[in-house]
Amino acid sequence: MISLLTDFGAGSEHVGALHAVLAVGAPGVERIDLAHDLAAGDIRGASLVLARLVPLLPGAVHLAVVDPGVGSPRRAAAVQLDDGGALVGPDNGLLGPAADAIGAVAAVALTPPSEGAATFHGRDLFAPAAARIARGVPVTDLGEAFDPAFLVRPDLPPPDVGEGHLRAPAIGIDRFGNVQLLAGRQDLAAAGFTRGDRIWAAVTDRRHPATVARVFADAAHKGMLVHVDSHGMVALAVNGGDAAKRVGVALGDEVTLGRWDLRR
Amino acid sequence: MISLLTDFGAGSEHVGALHAVLAVGAPGVERIDLAHDLAAGDIRGASLVLARLVPLLPGAVHLAVVDPGVGSPRRAAAVQLDDGGALVGPDNGLLGPAADAIGAVAAVALTPPSEGAATFHGRDLFAPAAARIARGVPVTDLGEAFDPAFLVRPDLPPPDVGEGHLRAPAIGIDRFGNVQLLAGRQDLAAAGFTRGDRIWAAVTDRRHPATVARVFADAAHKGMLVHVDSHGMVALAVNGGDAAKRVGVALGDEVTLGRWDLRR
Amino acid sequence: MISLLTDFGAGSEHVGALHAVLAVGAPGVERIDLAHDLAAGDIRGASLVLARLVPLLPGAVHLAVVDPGVGSPRRAAAVQLDDGGALVGPDNGLLGPAADAIGAVAAVALTPPSEGAATFHGRDLFAPAAARIARGVPVTDLGEAFDPAFLVRPDLPPPDVGEGHLRAPAIGIDRFGNVQLLAGRQDLAAAGFTRGDRIWAAVTDRRHPATVARVFADAAHKGMLVHVDSHGMVALAVNGGDAAKRVGVALGDEVTLGRWDLRR
Repeated sequence: MISLLTDFGAGSEHVGALHAVLAVGAPGVERIDLAHDLAAGDIRGASLVLARLVPLLPGAVHLAVVDPGVGSPRRAAAVQLDDGGALVGPDNGLLGPAADAIGAVAAVALTPPSEGAATFHGRDLFAPAAARIARGVPVTDLGEAFDPAFLVRPDLPPPDVGEGHLRAPAIGIDRFGNVQLLAGRQDLAAAGFTRGDRIWAAVTDRRHPATVARVFADAAHKGMLVHVDSHGMVALAVNGGDAAKRVGVALGDEVTLGRWDLRR
Repeated sequence: MISLLTDFGAGSEHVGALHAVLAVGAPGVERIDLAHDLAAGDIRGASLVLARLVPLLPGAVHLAVVDPGVGSPRRAAAVQLDDGGALVGPDNGLLGPAADAIGAVAAVALTPPSEGAATFHGRDLFAPAAARIARGVPVTDLGEAFDPAFLVRPDLPPPDVGEGHLRAPAIGIDRFGNVQLLAGRQDLAAAGFTRGDRIWAAVTDRRHPATVARVFADAAHKGMLVHVDSHGMVALAVNGGDAAKRVGVALGDEVTLGRWDLRR
Repeated sequence: MISLLTDFGAGSEHVGALHAVLAVGAPGVERIDLAHDLAAGDIRGASLVLARLVPLLPGAVHLAVVDPGVGSPRRAAAVQLDDGGALVGPDNGLLGPAADAIGAVAAVALTPPSEGAATFHGRDLFAPAAARIARGVPVTDLGEAFDPAFLVRPDLPPPDVGEGHLRAPAIGIDRFGNVQLLAGRQDLAAAGFTRGDRIWAAVTDRRHPATVARVFADAAHKGMLVHVDSHGMVALAVNGGDAAKRVGVALGDEVTLGRWDLRR
């Protein structure tokens, strides 16, 4: 199996071109679209999406292209994973968390195509490499080896956590307006927030009430909740509404959660 | 075959997760994306889309997830259909019209996963159940049986129809701005509207001229038409334009069609 | 293999219906989505996308539906290609460039379905025809033959080019804001623009500085570049930004590139 994850946009001709190259280059190999509507150029967010989807497909070849630096000297990489699968894509941080999630046994630098267009490595470099791996060519035959420990990792700072306080960037906003923060279950616990607590969420000075909850239905209709989402991350949601709009959060914004009785 | 219909958004990682679970859980079974850009949380509209697409794939397992009440006590269901296929999804009205279109022979309540995240039943409950059915596990083995007559049906009120008058909610607006109403061919006839009639359409006091027509080309360029669309529903369209924008219709709005010579 | 290219929107039920008809009509035949987010009704842009993707899938049946004139007397066509593949879709200009790219050996006019809906030829006419061809039915069995030389071609005017000057319409804008012009590498050369030149781009009187470059990374961060894109077309891009927004380009707008030292 070959999975595809890009920021090209669902239904874009760029995705179609990857599929066409893979269909011809690896006939009979199943292809699975993991995500294509990732925020344009958001390497960090995409790297986390990739890292949580890759474990669902053990042994698959994962073609990942979020590549704002295409044409720059950033390395192009293929990574042999512990589960028999592989990662193929730009070595700009996108592959790091997935490699760490599964374990990497080898990595190589792919040689960019000398001829032709310099701006679509997805079609001209990464997809052909993924097809070759899917056909059985060893990753180590595809380029010059480097230590997978030197794969680029994205900047994933730990949240700022104290008693009754948690501050972390918004790393994902879906079409429902759910806002995912770069913080996990243990961070919520470290802040002392427990189920049923009435807290607030804010990007600016304006504080918006929320309830610490397990599921959407724990909040009143149109009520906001802070919960651990289905990926294990702290998230803001509005039951029957749009948390991103209510709080005014854009991707990358720092979001603060706090107790009403604390001053900060 | 397994079909997928959700409101997750095309290219979203949520759709990717469903595909991954199905690919591993039901190897070799073909998967078909029926729709993913359905209006977020619009159970009624999605139920009608599902009901008209399901007959195109006799015998398939249909995984449908439009689930604003995930985590609430709404039932999770699998339905054995008359054509050998099955429906899997939340029993919130989404499955009712499709079950009625094909005929349901059995239904069971699926047991939600006790461990893990409470907010992504698509990945953790419905997709695994669909994969099991596609592998040949009988629907009746998946949970406690209930009478399919008790599947929830969405609220689908008949249109308000009189001579020279039809009023019904907008249940679908596509990217071309075509506006589908919750009314069928017989309702248009009951209102006495026939091909060539000059009528008006309105959401507010502002009336917009339209022609009752069979196809777009029956209207002048940029002219609005009222027709029976390719799904048998009454619809507004602008030849070479966007009817939703012209009339100012949002999903769920009540749209009135009327004759110019009548007062209402 | 059957490829699909439409302006229905990714994740739309219209695309789902095509897939369902193809899955049932041509069992076991692989389907590849080439593009679905093409600008609504933009026959010219879609025809060029189709023409550059079709060569990636030699021998495939290509189902293409961008059909603003559905229901009008425009011809419905199937085209036998030189590479063993075929094109199926409306003969409104959409198929012309792809037929020319590969070479067409025969064409037939498909007979529209007499019964049923008049507005969804994709589902009711084109997809069934594509499925029959994929199952081995000769194109020439599907309708009345006509000379492929009479396939409609879209209007593709050559750019207005002079020394230090190039003017051409924007024919593609992707989600990154890259703007593709209806002009090729040779036109850039004919204007005398060479790598490293500092030029301007404009839609109105407002001129925006740009550098003639090979890759994004040749421009400063947030700097604009004019380059030959991965499809061989002249394109505007901003390194780490959105060229369409900066210059204020909408699809179809005439874009002028010029040297600073020339008056026009």
